[in-house]
Amino acid sequence: MMPDQLNTFFDPAGVAVIGASANPAKLSHGVVRNLKNHGYRGPIYPVNPKGGQILGLRVYPTILDVPDPLDLAVVMIPAPLVPEAIEACGERGLQAVIVITGGFREAGAEGAALEQRLKQTAAHYGIRLIGPNCVGVLDTHTPLDTTFIAAMPSPGNIGFVSHSGAICGGTVDWAREMNIGFSRIASLGNQVDVDIADGIQMLQDDTHTQVISVYAEGLPDGQRFVEVASHIFRSKPIVMLKAGLTSAGTRAVASHTGALAGSEEGYRAACHRAGVLVVNSLQEQNDLAIALASQPLPAGNRVAILTNAGGPAALAADELDRHGLQLADLSRETHKRLATVTPKGAQLANPVDMLGGPEAEMYQAAGEILLADSHVDMLMAIFVPQAITPVDAVAHNIVAASRSADKPTVCCLVGGESISEAVQILNGGGVPYYRDPNRAARALGGLKEYAMLRDRPEFQPTPLPGIDPAKAKRLLQSAWAQTGRGFINAEMSARIAAAYGVRIPKSGIATTLAEAEQLASRLHYPVAMKLIAPGIVHKADVDGIALNLQDTEAIEDSFEAMVGGNTEHQVMLQQMVASGQEVILGMQRDPQFGPVLMFGMGGLFVEAFKDVAFRLAPLCAEDAQNMIAETAAGKILAGVRGRPRGDIDSIVSTLRRVGQLAADFPCISELDINPLIVNEGSGGVWAVDIRIALSQVPL
Amino acid sequence: MMPDQLNTFFDPAGVAVIGASANPAKLSHGVVRNLKNHGYRGPIYPVNPKGGQILGLRVYPTILDVPDPLDLAVVMIPAPLVPEAIEACGERGLQAVIVITGGFREAGAEGAALEQRLKQTAAHYGIRLIGPNCVGVLDTHTPLDTTFIAAMPSPGNIGFVSHSGAICGGTVDWAREMNIGFSRIASLGNQVDVDIADGIQMLQDDTHTQVISVYAEGLPDGQRFVEVASHIFRSKPIVMLKAGLTSAGTRAVASHTGALAGSEEGYRAACHRAGVLVVNSLQEQNDLAIALASQPLPAGNRVAILTNAGGPAALAADELDRHGLQLADLSRETHKRLATVTPKGAQLANPVDMLGGPEAEMYQAAGEILLADSHVDMLMAIFVPQAITPVDAVAHNIVAASRSADKPTVCCLVGGESISEAVQILNGGGVPYYRDPNRAARALGGLKEYAMLRDRPEFQPTPLPGIDPAKAKRLLQSAWAQTGRGFINAEMSARIAAAYGVRIPKSGIATTLAEAEQLASRLHYPVAMKLIAPGIVHKADVDGIALNLQDTEAIEDSFEAMVGGNTEHQVMLQQMVASGQEVILGMQRDPQFGPVLMFGMGGLFVEAFKDVAFRLAPLCAEDAQNMIAETAAGKILAGVRGRPRGDIDSIVSTLRRVGQLAADFPCISELDINPLIVNEGSGGVWAVDIRIALSQVPL
Repeated sequence: MMPDQLNTFFDPAGVAVIGASANPAKLSHGVVRNLKNHGYRGPIYPVNPKGGQILGLRVYPTILDVPDPLDLAVVMIPAPLVPEAIEACGERGLQAVIVITGGFREAGAEGAALEQRLKQTAAHYGIRLIGPNCVGVLDTHTPLDTTFIAAMPSPGNIGFVSHSGAICGGTVDWAREMNIGFSRIASLGNQVDVDIADGIQMLQDDTHTQVISVYAEGLPDGQRFVEVASHIFRSKPIVMLKAGLTSAGTRAVASHTGALAGSEEGYRAACHRAGVLVVNSLQEQNDLAIALASQPLPAGNRVAILTNAGGPAALAADELDRHGLQLADLSRETHKRLATVTPKGAQLANPVDMLGGPEAEMYQAAGEILLADSHVDMLMAIFVPQAITPVDAVAHNIVAASRSADKPTVCCLVGGESISEAVQILNGGGVPYYRDPNRAARALGGLKEYAMLRDRPEFQPTPLPGIDPAKAKRLLQSAWAQTGRGFINAEMSARIAAAYGVRIPKSGIATTLAEAEQLASRLHYPVAMKLIAPGIVHKADVDGIALNLQDTEAIEDSFEAMVGGNTEHQVMLQQMVASGQEVILGMQRDPQFGPVLMFGMGGLFVEAFKDVAFRLAPLCAEDAQNMIAETAAGKILAGVRGRPRGDIDSIVSTLRRVGQLAADFPCISELDINPLIVNEGSGGVWAVDIRIALSQVPL
Repeated sequence: MMPDQLNTFFDPAGVAVIGASANPAKLSHGVVRNLKNHGYRGPIYPVNPKGGQILGLRVYPTILDVPDPLDLAVVMIPAPLVPEAIEACGERGLQAVIVITGGFREAGAEGAALEQRLKQTAAHYGIRLIGPNCVGVLDTHTPLDTTFIAAMPSPGNIGFVSHSGAICGGTVDWAREMNIGFSRIASLGNQVDVDIADGIQMLQDDTHTQVISVYAEGLPDGQRFVEVASHIFRSKPIVMLKAGLTSAGTRAVASHTGALAGSEEGYRAACHRAGVLVVNSLQEQNDLAIALASQPLPAGNRVAILTNAGGPAALAADELDRHGLQLADLSRETHKRLATVTPKGAQLANPVDMLGGPEAEMYQAAGEILLADSHVDMLMAIFVPQAITPVDAVAHNIVAASRSADKPTVCCLVGGESISEAVQILNGGGVPYYRDPNRAARALGGLKEYAMLRDRPEFQPTPLPGIDPAKAKRLLQSAWAQTGRGFINAEMSARIAAAYGVRIPKSGIATTLAEAEQLASRLHYPVAMKLIAPGIVHKADVDGIALNLQDTEAIEDSFEAMVGGNTEHQVMLQQMVASGQEVILGMQRDPQFGPVLMFGMGGLFVEAFKDVAFRLAPLCAEDAQNMIAETAAGKILAGVRGRPRGDIDSIVSTLRRVGQLAADFPCISELDINPLIVNEGSGGVWAVDIRIALSQVPL
């Protein structure tokens, strides 16, 4: 569909409210009131079989009676009646409908069936549908307010898309107190049609929106979310909060929305790929959004702090450090100039401390000097109200200073009762305000984080040489025929991986002792023997592995122990490879985001250290390099304490090959290489043990 | 001195203000105004050579002219005049003086000299002195306000001690907006006499104070702080924020106060020993303090959430999980009862979601039912304001519910403009309010954390058998005589540790090849050889270690390589011990907190994983066990993946012995055992290589 159709939700030619009530206590009355009082310029058509007038507007008995222009309907009637109303909208030729009514999937099986009917009806008529179970949308610029939220935020450039309607209401209440402007707010509810990815697209298409803020509970079509976001994040930052990451949160979300929750690892890997800034609370989300909405991006990570109190400046410095930012080293020229505009005794090293009672004007003068210093990338102004200096004047002066340079400026006022007016001045003047120095520092960290995200290289996976998809497919089909759903045997797993160029020690399968002895001498001693038997996956648990077998006698002993007379048992023999650093490489298919790759330290350390990194598959080389570098395993492989460097390039290649295999064959639900033995220098890697699980027929 | 003398600061019989000005724009006028207008009941004596009247009060030319009753002076005259004023106070018989004036140590060398004079004069007269460079103190109960901060907070039970005066002002401003009561607020400034430890003691001695909140920059007498806090934390929680933990923060603090900063590890180890709750921001500090000040402690970690919006509840559930709390499993009885008091369609599983528009009274009814459930230890009420339910009524109902049980209740209102009155109702009614669900969850986590701290066993290190302090002293003195300051040789280090019962492989020193061969055969082959030479500490860097020497030939080769003809070189021979898990054990003497012990994984992993735990020395057995259990090394030693368990008891013993050695001998500045080889089962440990550094003459 065209973006134009989604734009209708925010800039309709006429709006009908189906189920509008004349009773001011009803929410459906509130919607008509908001449309009327919050400045919508087109015609408003209340629809109610009772007829009459609402707020001076003529009430139409049905949607079919409503005249043109009309291209948006807001539905607020009892759930069982909604599908019919949608049908009527379709007959009326509408292509955009918002269903505010709740009582669908979130209310149990009956509601879910109703929701299905809703969905089918909308699809039948080509209607784009927001909701059900939402509070509608608003646009401060057109302006349009289809919600029953008491007030509108001021016009601004933050767009907010939310799963939850309540959080939209809370956000508006907060925005008004803080004097924060929003462009569009959309509550999506159960998302039978318009989902989070569409929501992001709607904000991308809006010229007033400069920052995209998202609150999500589930992300059913996670892969589409990644695709949409990754095309948008370089032009507009996307700040995202998701509930239901921990097991308790997942349980809470499930009972609330019935939304399917994927893994936290999958979510984080997806946001990484999508270029999304991940936040963990509403406060952090708003704190970051207001900085991104009002400030240019910093060229570097050097921060100047201008303050009238040392304590909060030191707290800010601690937090800057935690986010990879540093205190700027001011130039000598700056010191000299600061001395002429600050009180006697002021500390001119960064943080610049003008002591307890500076004049308000000093904030402008000193702020401009700091912003002019080429060693300074960002400015944080801190003021603790006291008896002498008027806080509102300080706020005005900080706003003035911020306009002297194209560098980010944020402000922290440590106070409460006395600062409410100053908060309005700052936020209104384009300098984001924070009550706590740590929050101001975190916001600057967010600006830097986004600048780095925006500048990262395009994701362009180059083609992999030496992969043979046709062969892999044949092997997978044969494995499926043998084993069906679940883990396939080690030998077959190894051959499939080898078809994608993963380096595997030479191996073969033997059913009799004679075959085993022959195979061993062909492979050359020493060899490893692994049991292959139906239903046995963790070979180590059943004495199903014998390493370093040196001669026929050893082969005999191990074969006897593993196979005995059991005709269902076979053994796999494998060349022994030299020891090296052991790492683990894995892939799990996330129900929301598709294949997620894992890399980490092998052996004992997986469980004790949880030293693992995750990425969505497939990977480009840079992704794989970063993934390895994130882990302690990566640091050890890079050569700590004069230790030889491991063959990281070969791990990168293996990660990419496994990622491509997973991307090419959705039938693979799980893949583990444990261990992958990493040789020194450019000695390559050996995938010594591979397990592949299938979940569906290979196509 | 008696606590009574410190109490004078908050409950004086009469107060003189030295340097009081008649000019209302001067801060010294503000102090007289606050004393007068904020309810102080005793006589107020402005002191100024100009005489006259201030605010209707007679001005005395000097402190000597002031009549009784008088036992507190507040000094606000230029810094150079302060020492003389203190002397006059001493002559007048005062024992409590607050110096608000700045311009001392924080202003450079001249100021530091002035501060020394101040200190000496106060000590000479037995005067307890707060400041200089502070904003004074206030007590809302006596009441007394010696600051120039514009307003007083309401009476309450949070006591606040702050290094920084500005942060006191910001806190008062915040407290008034939020309707949070305080008992005492003390700004300590440069702390020439009364320091943070005294401040904590002053709040402990105050019957109105129930929570001790501390903001510190430096902690010069860290050991006294630990001693005082560890005696107090079981009766009153101590919530502490310290600036200057990272390198940037330390730099900011140093330029601001000239305070000496110790290591972050030392600080955290000290707070652990002292039973102090560590927070990282002003916001977190206030959030925790208001919960501790108003709520009983929870009996367990099970939380019920009552909400009108699913989203914020899910965010809260995520954050609860991060703090080790869980969603309570409600009883069947509770489900039944909830069904009778909540709207139709409400979700009765925890989180209990009453949907968008519950009646306000439902918060009381459902809240009481939840608090009555024996599966519930704590309640979080969440409300997102909307058009239907009056938020103030909801607040009243939540307060009412909280009074039905002796269990913690906190409240989160997700909003802004519309909630200011509700915030006052909640905080005033004893239910702490948070704007963000994550903050509410963190506060509940803090309550649980304190409950666990309070209930932890007393710190009672039992005597260690098999230590020989006299022998250790002789060896240390002999080492000092040989080497002086710095690292002493490996053989001597090993003997000193052995005197405290650390298990060391048998060893000896040889100067000639013949001696070496004799020694080796006495020790039994195989042996290790280590070079002992002046100025060489890291033996591995100079080929100064040879392991696993099997025979005289090997001894000859290695001796030749290490000693050659160099008469300054000797070798240490040591029995080889069997391999085992390698760990590291270290001690560094922190300038503020004394000996800090470190334990972690050895080998390559120290640098890559930073898997280390820290504690103050000496240790009791439980401390050492917890310290080991905190690390991944500890998990591996406890036997992951069916691996044999390492001899953890012997590590505990070694940690305690090293801790005791460090505590007994302040001359030891540093000690490392790297590696400590840990055998399986009860096979003991071997301290294979020990380095000890001395910083002063052993006494």
